[in-house]
Amino acid sequence: MDIAERINRLRKLMQDMQIDYYYITTSDYHNSEYVDEYFKEREYLSGFTGSNGNLLIGRESAGLWTDGRYFIQAQRELEGSGITLFRMGEEGVPTVEAYLDEHLKEGQTLAFDGRCISIEMGEKLEKLMEKKEGKICYELDLPNGIWKERPGRKAEKIFLLPEKICGLSFEEKLMLVRNALTDQNCSNLVLSKLDDIMWLFNVRGGDIECNPVALSYSIITPDECLLFLQEKALTEEVINYLEKKSVTLKDYDSFEKVLKRISWQGKVLLDKTNSNYTIHKLLENRVEVIFHTNPTEKLKAGKNEVEREQMRQVYLKDSLVVCRFMRWLKENVGKIPMTELSAGAYMDNLRRQTEGFLDLSFPTICAYKENAAMMHYQASEENHKEITAEGMLLIDSGGQYLGGTTDVTRTYCLGEVTGEMKDHYTAVVMGMLRLLNAKFLYGCTGRNLDILARGSLWEMGIDYKCGTGHGIGYMLNVHEGPQNIRWRFAEGSAEAVLEEGMVLSDEPGVYKGGSHGIRIENIMVVKKAEKNEDGQFMEFEGLTWAPIDLELINKEMMEKKDIDNLNRYHRLVYEKLSPLMEEEEKKWLEQVTRQI
Amino acid sequence: MDIAERINRLRKLMQDMQIDYYYITTSDYHNSEYVDEYFKEREYLSGFTGSNGNLLIGRESAGLWTDGRYFIQAQRELEGSGITLFRMGEEGVPTVEAYLDEHLKEGQTLAFDGRCISIEMGEKLEKLMEKKEGKICYELDLPNGIWKERPGRKAEKIFLLPEKICGLSFEEKLMLVRNALTDQNCSNLVLSKLDDIMWLFNVRGGDIECNPVALSYSIITPDECLLFLQEKALTEEVINYLEKKSVTLKDYDSFEKVLKRISWQGKVLLDKTNSNYTIHKLLENRVEVIFHTNPTEKLKAGKNEVEREQMRQVYLKDSLVVCRFMRWLKENVGKIPMTELSAGAYMDNLRRQTEGFLDLSFPTICAYKENAAMMHYQASEENHKEITAEGMLLIDSGGQYLGGTTDVTRTYCLGEVTGEMKDHYTAVVMGMLRLLNAKFLYGCTGRNLDILARGSLWEMGIDYKCGTGHGIGYMLNVHEGPQNIRWRFAEGSAEAVLEEGMVLSDEPGVYKGGSHGIRIENIMVVKKAEKNEDGQFMEFEGLTWAPIDLELINKEMMEKKDIDNLNRYHRLVYEKLSPLMEEEEKKWLEQVTRQI
Repeated sequence: MDIAERINRLRKLMQDMQIDYYYITTSDYHNSEYVDEYFKEREYLSGFTGSNGNLLIGRESAGLWTDGRYFIQAQRELEGSGITLFRMGEEGVPTVEAYLDEHLKEGQTLAFDGRCISIEMGEKLEKLMEKKEGKICYELDLPNGIWKERPGRKAEKIFLLPEKICGLSFEEKLMLVRNALTDQNCSNLVLSKLDDIMWLFNVRGGDIECNPVALSYSIITPDECLLFLQEKALTEEVINYLEKKSVTLKDYDSFEKVLKRISWQGKVLLDKTNSNYTIHKLLENRVEVIFHTNPTEKLKAGKNEVEREQMRQVYLKDSLVVCRFMRWLKENVGKIPMTELSAGAYMDNLRRQTEGFLDLSFPTICAYKENAAMMHYQASEENHKEITAEGMLLIDSGGQYLGGTTDVTRTYCLGEVTGEMKDHYTAVVMGMLRLLNAKFLYGCTGRNLDILARGSLWEMGIDYKCGTGHGIGYMLNVHEGPQNIRWRFAEGSAEAVLEEGMVLSDEPGVYKGGSHGIRIENIMVVKKAEKNEDGQFMEFEGLTWAPIDLELINKEMMEKKDIDNLNRYHRLVYEKLSPLMEEEEKKWLEQVTRQI
Repeated sequence: MDIAERINRLRKLMQDMQIDYYYITTSDYHNSEYVDEYFKEREYLSGFTGSNGNLLIGRESAGLWTDGRYFIQAQRELEGSGITLFRMGEEGVPTVEAYLDEHLKEGQTLAFDGRCISIEMGEKLEKLMEKKEGKICYELDLPNGIWKERPGRKAEKIFLLPEKICGLSFEEKLMLVRNALTDQNCSNLVLSKLDDIMWLFNVRGGDIECNPVALSYSIITPDECLLFLQEKALTEEVINYLEKKSVTLKDYDSFEKVLKRISWQGKVLLDKTNSNYTIHKLLENRVEVIFHTNPTEKLKAGKNEVEREQMRQVYLKDSLVVCRFMRWLKENVGKIPMTELSAGAYMDNLRRQTEGFLDLSFPTICAYKENAAMMHYQASEENHKEITAEGMLLIDSGGQYLGGTTDVTRTYCLGEVTGEMKDHYTAVVMGMLRLLNAKFLYGCTGRNLDILARGSLWEMGIDYKCGTGHGIGYMLNVHEGPQNIRWRFAEGSAEAVLEEGMVLSDEPGVYKGGSHGIRIENIMVVKKAEKNEDGQFMEFEGLTWAPIDLELINKEMMEKKDIDNLNRYHRLVYEKLSPLMEEEEKKWLEQVTRQI
């Protein structure tokens, strides 16, 4: 059944049910950044495989909205489907809402699966449909009726984390959450963000690739704590643990039914961006809802000392993996056949062999030469480069371990490179190290610090079109809020003060289309420095200990302080990793971390 | 008549008129930062002479609210007055609103002069009084009845600026303002901010010390432009000019009467923070009011090329003044009697003798040794230090010239200083020059850049408790919005993208209470750098060319780039100023701007 036929069948259903437009986003019921196959209805109906895209199907027209990363791919994948591509952010391209505003006629009906749309988006559509005096159906999963070969919902076994690597027990975390609710004058919380639920209950799952989370919901009331899990994902151990913790275990699929039946005492806190529209529909008119960020978000972001110590150990192991990859790459390039796919697989295998390894934390990006200029490049069987002894290779990879989530990027010299490439590389390294070594007053957000990493590039008239850093979870999602490091924020978007224990990436880069891409990414933790009459100073503790390729450094460009930063970093890399190495490897490390 | 007696008389009036609380702010009718003597009712009634303070008089109690700069002074000045001092910002100290909320009883009456309170503040008080089911009287200037010796309102002669130093004619500016009104769906503007009015009409006045503005209002409707001025401030030339420009000239005191009588077509734009409460009361219910920043603010802030060229010339002259002061100070300290007052007067006299000089742009701050640790120190007849050949002297001063407003701070070595002082001085210079030499992408605000100036101090565990830079007017107020450079913003406070032509100060400092204070302040203009595929880059053009005291520099602390910055700056100082000097002075300048 080709795409056009799938859309035809959907239109038939729409006609039967008197629906004029059906809207399909890229989301599961939990606003997850990545989703499992089961939730890829948009991909099934459009053929477009990118990670971001929303599909709007009308009776006669169909449109797909996606962002700049996917313009070329989407154009290719949509060919012959009859779907129009809307290039988000380009001048004159309407948003989905603006498109509907223009085309949807008075009194028509818009349908979507309310579980796959945030409250925020749902409210926008509500307002639009009110204006149009039209109707919204939000309880329909239409594609399900035609997607015969739809895969089953994943339900990997849930596992418990030992409290000794969590730092806080479930009961302690629950108390913190309830205190935070009280601060907002709420008594109840409906939690549907998967990593927040995993954090709170000290459990992990495997229902989303690279994200160790289980499909779940939780409801916290003044005297009960409900957890909704898939029966297939349960083990005896998990059931016993939850019982001991007085958690009321419910079936994942009963969530909506239960939600409808609760007799609430006091207000319910609900996160507008991280909860789906259906949840709000089931609550409104039945209880007073207060919109506020999930209190779990900030609690989860500030890692406690136990978590931090676990991460230190995990990052040592992970940095050793990166060292071994670097050595293998440098010693074998030009001598054995090597492609972006095989080199990436080599890195992945090294990680898999590491003690405590659970999963990759995201699909490894291994990008050679000009492919590295595409920030989110993914090599594939059909489309990848051979690697030879020239130019640069960028590799961005990470793992999920018992004790932490890692993420690291290095760019390596494989042979001849231009002076421009070296200059770009050196500026990136200077920026990364300047930010890593920053000292700042408590109260700063990433916006205050971004220029430390970006400034060396701005001076050269170069920018990278993304933030400098994202938050990172603890054995959880590799992208975690609320912290980040950016220089520009969309009106009203969240900007978090950097609090002790927050983990962030520091990853400036240069992306020259058609030529080369460079990114150096270290991970760091916010910690307190001295406190004096001028205030509480803060700084970063580094977690990543992987050599920076000295073959790409142009020392002439560097200030004395930049050279000190680099030498100090390499001294620490050697001090931390050499005890874990055999003599021969130690010698190699000594050489690649030599002082300049 | 002492303070207690003045308050007694006010209370008698309050009793007669059944008023329970009378509130007196420090403001004229235009939300000016500085106010003329006529408007100093709060000072008259409390004896407190600081530039910021609000007085609340009840039937039995009286309180004065002021900020940290004035705690010591206010305590001294309020002694014996029966007025309680409320230290704003200290823990447990209520705001005026919170105090009223606690003490004002249901059904009581609060009075104030609505012309001296912003719409924002008025709305807060309105809400409070609604809750209390009380009454507001906003049309009373009670102190006027007891202040027998009240000075007359200043009405200095208004003068016209030649169009050739304004860059834009009144008609051109009016068109820009009307276009900006249209963008906000408004047809009318009620303008009461004095510098905005001066800018629009290309005139200047002298009704506030150091600020060349005339007391005035303006109303712009689709087919008329009204300007309200004091009759005494008019000249034949001004009257003719306004007539030629088809401006309807009205008497300043008729403003409210006229405002009430206008039959509006379309909406009125009103700036909530910069318009007084009475204006809004006269408009509401009679026309739809849209709250928005005055469109003049942003137009005025981006100086055009003509204004910039004028400023370049004026800053050359003004920098020459600073050079001559430096030379006089260094050659005479320890040899002739010298005090903070006499040294400040020497600087002021040099400025006064300069061609095109109109006025100081603020009262000169001349602070010796530990006095310089007080950011807003003012030497007085009763209270000032003698200057001898040791320690450091900080002098912060500026002038109003035909062609620009200046502001410059230098800190000088007068003899023996400690190593710590030199280190602090060097870090301040490094920070000032790093910001001055910044390159950044269009879209940055001061928040992105602040760390460039502050970072060298943060690294030493030092902070200064103020912003790094403020906007500066063109022959107007020395503090001008919307641009500024700060690292922290109060929730909801304005933050402006740095636009071409905006003029800013760059003034990091170190303030060690009881020991020393250092501030180095240069003025700079935002300008475009290259535009490429990564965006429009921006940079600063320096305006200030005054030597930085090399006797206080610890070169060891500086990066190569900092040394280059300093040497380049001094080379430019010499290149720009030496052509204006005699041989002997040139030799001196060559020496103080020598390369290090």
